[in-house]
Amino acid sequence: MIRIGVLISGSGTNLQAIIDACNSGYIDGKVVVVISNKEDAYGRVRARKAGIPEYYISHRGKSREEFEDELIEVLEKYEVDLVALAGFMRILSPHFVRRYYGRLMNIHPALLPAFPGINVQEKQWEYGVKIAGCTVHFVDEGTDTGPIIIQAAVPVYSDDTAEDVRLRILEQEHKIYPLAIKLFAEGRLTIEGRRVIIQGEKKKGGFLMNPSE
Amino acid sequence: MIRIGVLISGSGTNLQAIIDACNSGYIDGKVVVVISNKEDAYGRVRARKAGIPEYYISHRGKSREEFEDELIEVLEKYEVDLVALAGFMRILSPHFVRRYYGRLMNIHPALLPAFPGINVQEKQWEYGVKIAGCTVHFVDEGTDTGPIIIQAAVPVYSDDTAEDVRLRILEQEHKIYPLAIKLFAEGRLTIEGRRVIIQGEKKKGGFLMNPSE
Repeated sequence: MIRIGVLISGSGTNLQAIIDACNSGYIDGKVVVVISNKEDAYGRVRARKAGIPEYYISHRGKSREEFEDELIEVLEKYEVDLVALAGFMRILSPHFVRRYYGRLMNIHPALLPAFPGINVQEKQWEYGVKIAGCTVHFVDEGTDTGPIIIQAAVPVYSDDTAEDVRLRILEQEHKIYPLAIKLFAEGRLTIEGRRVIIQGEKKKGGFLMNPSE
Repeated sequence: MIRIGVLISGSGTNLQAIIDACNSGYIDGKVVVVISNKEDAYGRVRARKAGIPEYYISHRGKSREEFEDELIEVLEKYEVDLVALAGFMRILSPHFVRRYYGRLMNIHPALLPAFPGINVQEKQWEYGVKIAGCTVHFVDEGTDTGPIIIQAAVPVYSDDTAEDVRLRILEQEHKIYPLAIKLFAEGRLTIEGRRVIIQGEKKKGGFLMNPSE
């Protein structure tokens, strides 16, 4: 059973999906600590409700390395095997990333390498893509550039608002992040260069076309 | 019934898909002329076999505008309503693009705006995406930047070769290009800024996740 630390900055819906997947036994693991860099993040309430120790560690007035050392101290105290970023809105420096490489994941609400950065649900809508999506990846020293573990694609319709697109992507986020962590907990992920090799991968086939016939 | 001109540089499998879709009545249209800028393009044979007038117009030793004027002369002679680029490997200048904007389409073997340019099937494999795909778009003055009409997404598996990915994408290309032209022929496509609005769009729903559970 792996020990998971989750870093958040906001409402923590992906945190909740991970907690639920651990509690149901879908993930062979346990969220042992949650850290927020925002005092008012609702994800902190979710952690407390689930009986998980949670910490508020502000980045304000600290160097990046000082802030990260405080994160590391807590993560080490709880002996985490995996660090999952779930709506954590701070860029982590090589100081942090190198220490956890291969056991540090992030979720991003676009089909990387398209639309790195922030507010990308709206950017996908504005660009006029017909297929949007989300990505779980290992974090490397770039921004949203690390090896991809899993992706999900969804349609964008002509009369969608940007909010429709955001919600359709979010629904998939809540599936792929638990699945990526499940695969990690089962020891089925291997990084080979830029590619993530998945042991015992199910080849479901299929495709998504939009608009459809 | 719309009159379609197709520009090719190579084997013309997308040309064939369009011809077949016209012959079966799926597209309310007819390929009236095929132009290749490569003398040995197999697509020329496909055109002749289908009884379609075909022209070889080399770009060699000509200015971009001179070359494009020769294309335009033939396209005007055949009174085309739509110009479909199908593996046509020359960049078209604003001189050509402005003349046909809104009735000039291209197919690209990636989920734009990810992976513009050439050899992108291999680039998707190398990058390690778990979902690849293809895009039909109206052509604007940029490279692979025009308003998106239709996209299709496919999985990329751990043990795939780049060739596996290429073939899986190609299978979808042969569906989405005829569909995009069918929608155009039915007058159902409207460009609003960067977004293509599709009249009477079917909302099929669904998603594609890879790896799957």
